[in-house]
Amino acid sequence: MSNRPSKRANDETRKIELIPNFSPYAEGSCLAKFGNTHVLVTASVEEKVPGWMKGTKKGWVTAEYGMLPRATHTRGKREAASGKQSGRTQEIQRLIGRGLRSVVDLVALGERQILIDCDVLQADGGTRTASLTGAYVALSLACKYLREEGLIIENPIRAQVAAISCGIYKGEPVLDLDYDEDSSAEADANFIIAQNLGLVEVQATGEERPFTEVEFNELLSLAKKGCDELFALQAKAIG
Amino acid sequence: MSNRPSKRANDETRKIELIPNFSPYAEGSCLAKFGNTHVLVTASVEEKVPGWMKGTKKGWVTAEYGMLPRATHTRGKREAASGKQSGRTQEIQRLIGRGLRSVVDLVALGERQILIDCDVLQADGGTRTASLTGAYVALSLACKYLREEGLIIENPIRAQVAAISCGIYKGEPVLDLDYDEDSSAEADANFIIAQNLGLVEVQATGEERPFTEVEFNELLSLAKKGCDELFALQAKAIG
Amino acid sequence: MSNRPSKRANDETRKIELIPNFSPYAEGSCLAKFGNTHVLVTASVEEKVPGWMKGTKKGWVTAEYGMLPRATHTRGKREAASGKQSGRTQEIQRLIGRGLRSVVDLVALGERQILIDCDVLQADGGTRTASLTGAYVALSLACKYLREEGLIIENPIRAQVAAISCGIYKGEPVLDLDYDEDSSAEADANFIIAQNLGLVEVQATGEERPFTEVEFNELLSLAKKGCDELFALQAKAIG
Amino acid sequence: MSNRPSKRANDETRKIELIPNFSPYAEGSCLAKFGNTHVLVTASVEEKVPGWMKGTKKGWVTAEYGMLPRATHTRGKREAASGKQSGRTQEIQRLIGRGLRSVVDLVALGERQILIDCDVLQADGGTRTASLTGAYVALSLACKYLREEGLIIENPIRAQVAAISCGIYKGEPVLDLDYDEDSSAEADANFIIAQNLGLVEVQATGEERPFTEVEFNELLSLAKKGCDELFALQAKAIG
Amino acid sequence: MSNRPSKRANDETRKIELIPNFSPYAEGSCLAKFGNTHVLVTASVEEKVPGWMKGTKKGWVTAEYGMLPRATHTRGKREAASGKQSGRTQEIQRLIGRGLRSVVDLVALGERQILIDCDVLQADGGTRTASLTGAYVALSLACKYLREEGLIIENPIRAQVAAISCGIYKGEPVLDLDYDEDSSAEADANFIIAQNLGLVEVQATGEERPFTEVEFNELLSLAKKGCDELFALQAKAIG
Amino acid sequence: MSNRPSKRANDETRKIELIPNFSPYAEGSCLAKFGNTHVLVTASVEEKVPGWMKGTKKGWVTAEYGMLPRATHTRGKREAASGKQSGRTQEIQRLIGRGLRSVVDLVALGERQILIDCDVLQADGGTRTASLTGAYVALSLACKYLREEGLIIENPIRAQVAAISCGIYKGEPVLDLDYDEDSSAEADANFIIAQNLGLVEVQATGEERPFTEVEFNELLSLAKKGCDELFALQAKAIG
Repeated sequence: MSNRPSKRANDETRKIELIPNFSPYAEGSCLAKFGNTHVLVTASVEEKVPGWMKGTKKGWVTAEYGMLPRATHTRGKREAASGKQSGRTQEIQRLIGRGLRSVVDLVALGERQILIDCDVLQADGGTRTASLTGAYVALSLACKYLREEGLIIENPIRAQVAAISCGIYKGEPVLDLDYDEDSSAEADANFIIAQNLGLVEVQATGEERPFTEVEFNELLSLAKKGCDELFALQAKAIG
Repeated sequence: MSNRPSKRANDETRKIELIPNFSPYAEGSCLAKFGNTHVLVTASVEEKVPGWMKGTKKGWVTAEYGMLPRATHTRGKREAASGKQSGRTQEIQRLIGRGLRSVVDLVALGERQILIDCDVLQADGGTRTASLTGAYVALSLACKYLREEGLIIENPIRAQVAAISCGIYKGEPVLDLDYDEDSSAEADANFIIAQNLGLVEVQATGEERPFTEVEFNELLSLAKKGCDELFALQAKAIG
Repeated sequence: MSNRPSKRANDETRKIELIPNFSPYAEGSCLAKFGNTHVLVTASVEEKVPGWMKGTKKGWVTAEYGMLPRATHTRGKREAASGKQSGRTQEIQRLIGRGLRSVVDLVALGERQILIDCDVLQADGGTRTASLTGAYVALSLACKYLREEGLIIENPIRAQVAAISCGIYKGEPVLDLDYDEDSSAEADANFIIAQNLGLVEVQATGEERPFTEVEFNELLSLAKKGCDELFALQAKAIG
Repeated sequence: MSNRPSKRANDETRKIELIPNFSPYAEGSCLAKFGNTHVLVTASVEEKVPGWMKGTKKGWVTAEYGMLPRATHTRGKREAASGKQSGRTQEIQRLIGRGLRSVVDLVALGERQILIDCDVLQADGGTRTASLTGAYVALSLACKYLREEGLIIENPIRAQVAAISCGIYKGEPVLDLDYDEDSSAEADANFIIAQNLGLVEVQATGEERPFTEVEFNELLSLAKKGCDELFALQAKAIG
Repeated sequence: MSNRPSKRANDETRKIELIPNFSPYAEGSCLAKFGNTHVLVTASVEEKVPGWMKGTKKGWVTAEYGMLPRATHTRGKREAASGKQSGRTQEIQRLIGRGLRSVVDLVALGERQILIDCDVLQADGGTRTASLTGAYVALSLACKYLREEGLIIENPIRAQVAAISCGIYKGEPVLDLDYDEDSSAEADANFIIAQNLGLVEVQATGEERPFTEVEFNELLSLAKKGCDELFALQAKAIG
Repeated sequence: MSNRPSKRANDETRKIELIPNFSPYAEGSCLAKFGNTHVLVTASVEEKVPGWMKGTKKGWVTAEYGMLPRATHTRGKREAASGKQSGRTQEIQRLIGRGLRSVVDLVALGERQILIDCDVLQADGGTRTASLTGAYVALSLACKYLREEGLIIENPIRAQVAAISCGIYKGEPVLDLDYDEDSSAEADANFIIAQNLGLVEVQATGEERPFTEVEFNELLSLAKKGCDELFALQAKAIG
């Protein structure tokens, strides 16, 4: 019997949908739904790179992240109005960019940039992992577009990459935390995993108390199971 | 036979949908679709007013507006990242707030604030008029919520309010411009109309050339026709 | 008998002066006085255009607007100190730039920019319309300078342009509102008119209540009368 | 025979006018003209003090400084648009506030603030000294207003204060530099002097080369002569 | 034989010094030296908490991080001059605050705040882990001060906390990376460990390639060894 | 017998140390200690000049100044966090840059920039004069480095430059004020002096009351004595 507010089994994800080509304009896009967490991800191709990369014959992949003010239970401040992005926002968008670049061959991409925008329409926990998982789909579709347009020959993506959160909730390791769980978890962790290659990024935090190595390894096992599901959904979305 | 890229008749709007209660968290919300222009509007109730209104026993309604970076054909800068809202953004959100307040009895609202967020998911022309039209729905639903919660007795909304754009395209007055029309219109105008009461706001600009009084009056006739359609859709959405 | 605080007839402007060449340094300048509203306008020629216009062989005209902190009855914040321009300021300067460009042949101007600065020394209502009316004079003088210097051959200005405010005050349409009228008007409107060509911009707002088409047309009639006076004063100022 | 571009004698100031009550709204104001340098100064009384002074029963005098973009030969950036005040601006406004406070009895002023705004309409050198000299007039008139209104009994101003610039130009000490002199002076200095009391502030800089004590003392003598003239003009302006 | 540029053994830290009471003014302070990485940490006690904590009877511990512009091989921009803290800076200071709070009993601290400032005087890799390790010392000394002043009875610190970096360099897991190693590591990880309690935070990133669970566990073993050394040094520094 | 809190004689400086080459990375550096005031100064060579100097074949020397938040008795705000440099900070860094440039032959420096960073680790009064005095050492070492690297032939530094503060404390002129003296001085002054050449900058302020010429001359005498000591210490530090 489940202790989780949602009655899910400890190793059960929420209902996840990755809807490709959601945007009519972007070169690649995906609406990633993890239960009530909905993130609209677009991938925009720009035929130039940041100044410090000019002439390197390498491309770049970077990400920006935002949350609609009323994506959450209580309204947050609009970052554009307050004049700056929060530390949390910057931390998340740096994480997404780094995670994606870990599976992209920047030389094969050529001297161009793919800009990923992750905008959270609704937030119920796990927005950064939903963002990265959907971003992989949007990025893949943008690369497909580049090949179809004849702008690149080879697919610059070397492996699938996905992310999922886990945590220790009421003493038990659980997969894919929703907001209720996240806000009272004893520890939580985000894992980015590259299919068949291993770990790309691990971020684990003892929120209420330090956690043990044993607990950490249980979280990692859950994450591997979860990412396997995500890899299948991504493959299906890209077609 | 139509000269419009969309083959619409000159006095024909795009397919318009006003989907109420789109957000799971906001006190009122609406997804407003005018063809390919999609705006997600939420109304958030806050039990306090801006500092300069404290103790006045009056409420306040205000609006913020934003566009996802890739809502458009080419990606625009994220305003949160560039650190400020553009003049265009501020102009639009001031317009929406002013238009809504024109039909709200701020005393009946009581000393609280309703904050309207208009976030453009996709933009194909007419985002400010779609925003205001959807905002009326979100605002009405938030007022309904306030009455249901017993926080107010009387509905503070005195009349329906809606907005539509018109313009002179290839020499002819047309209703509800899409992006293709808007970007090459000779003149364009936005009208905010309060049902049975008259004009709330008129903004008309000669983009390519000045326009005549006759032309202006033709645009106004189209706008009245368009807003009548919008009033019906709003009523249906609110139920 | 007049209901206006100033005892003016409903269709009577304030005492208006357009003093050309007020600045010893600018290529064109004008001190525009509409009663107690005084705006110092300068036109600065720059032999370069904004980045996005380079190589187009077209010029650009743009405007900036500011108000001295104690131009008004109570001191306002200095925008330079608070670190940003208000939405109102940006709205006004965009309006002025747009209004001026509507009568300028940007190709005839050549690849250079004319920057209009409108600084309000005293404000008693109608600062945006006084700014645009004076800006036309400053712009014309700057174009005269360009011709005298042999930098351009042809005058790039195709028509005179002027602006005036009107409003419904105590139930009656009146011309050229001062601050006392403006702050309690039921509706107000700003019109930008190009001589012999028609309307360039209309901005009408129901402040206290929506307004009717009949009322709107009365305001427009007043504005046309007012702009005819302004065209004469502009012509005289330019000489 | 004079070596100065203006043909003035070395100890001769420009034509100086201090026009009181220039602003129709401010509690005190002065248009200070030092030749082609024109500064509009207003003094605004606010019945509150900065947070850190609350409850001290002492008042405060502070100053803000700005320059219209085209006050100078070539247009400078508008500080409100670039989003911050330059180091030069902040240095000047700090200097003016400090100089004025040196002659004000803050206890006699009572727990209120006088805000001085110095806005340079035209700049031909010496804007900071013209600002302070005119600010003394505006401040005095504001204090007169406070006494007339019965808000204070005693005049909180203990002495007249004025400022003038001097410099070494073509090897010779000269008084009241204009822009031509200032931009090629070997050294320049600004003196703030309190009548009958002594020096309030000295700022001397070797622009092209270090300067000697002898030179410094010659500059100081010129400054004392110049300030004596200014004290007379101030007294006449205040009446 | 070592492959490391510094010739250290794979499990060997740099020479580490934690110099307590380095600052003459702060309630607690520590100069943390990890080889050529020098961080000056101060702990400032403030008898108030952030607004959102008022009345909770709980205290707060937070951290700010900065780097002198020339702490590094090439000069970086001064964040105060560029007007904002980078994403990296914010990420680090959030990490330090979170890590410290994990071992502090905020109720025992009482309604006051301890502000940790970590300023990097020289950077040779590992500045965030050196910062946290030194911050523990500064925080402990500030808590000692609070007890000595009689402001609190009980020590609010429940356990020692320290941090160290590890990474995979030329295929081998190594402890306490310096800049040369860090900039070419295949993967790197930062561990925050609470003595006898377990893991507080894990951040591991595959820079050049994903990493395996086996590799991760080797890094963790190194980190535990390293933190044990740090716990001893901290204890000695606090005395 | 001394009236000074430190028991120093009126013409006695604090214990001053100028430790050269304190930074392992900068081209020139100095830790300047004036008693408890400690400033870390680095000089960074950049092989480019600001945009407005390109092509002039002249170099540039400029300075930035900062204070660690807890350099003082009570913690100040971190300027990077508050998003801007204070007026005081800007005033000081402009002063340091100007003072250094007065002794540098910018043509001999060649088209490159030397950026001086003055970061105050501890502040006990006189940080700007300690900064400039140490900056001269750092700048000299950077110029030495440029000559040793063969990038320039001739030493671009024409004279030694140093700075010291003086003030009137309890009615008596004293040299090198510490914080206790500075905060209650009747007047204070900062002098920048170039060896054998004269005065580079004088800034004197009557804090509590205006000061006389006689007092000013006494302060100047003290400053000359103090700078002679500093010239000797600088020479020794540079070696």
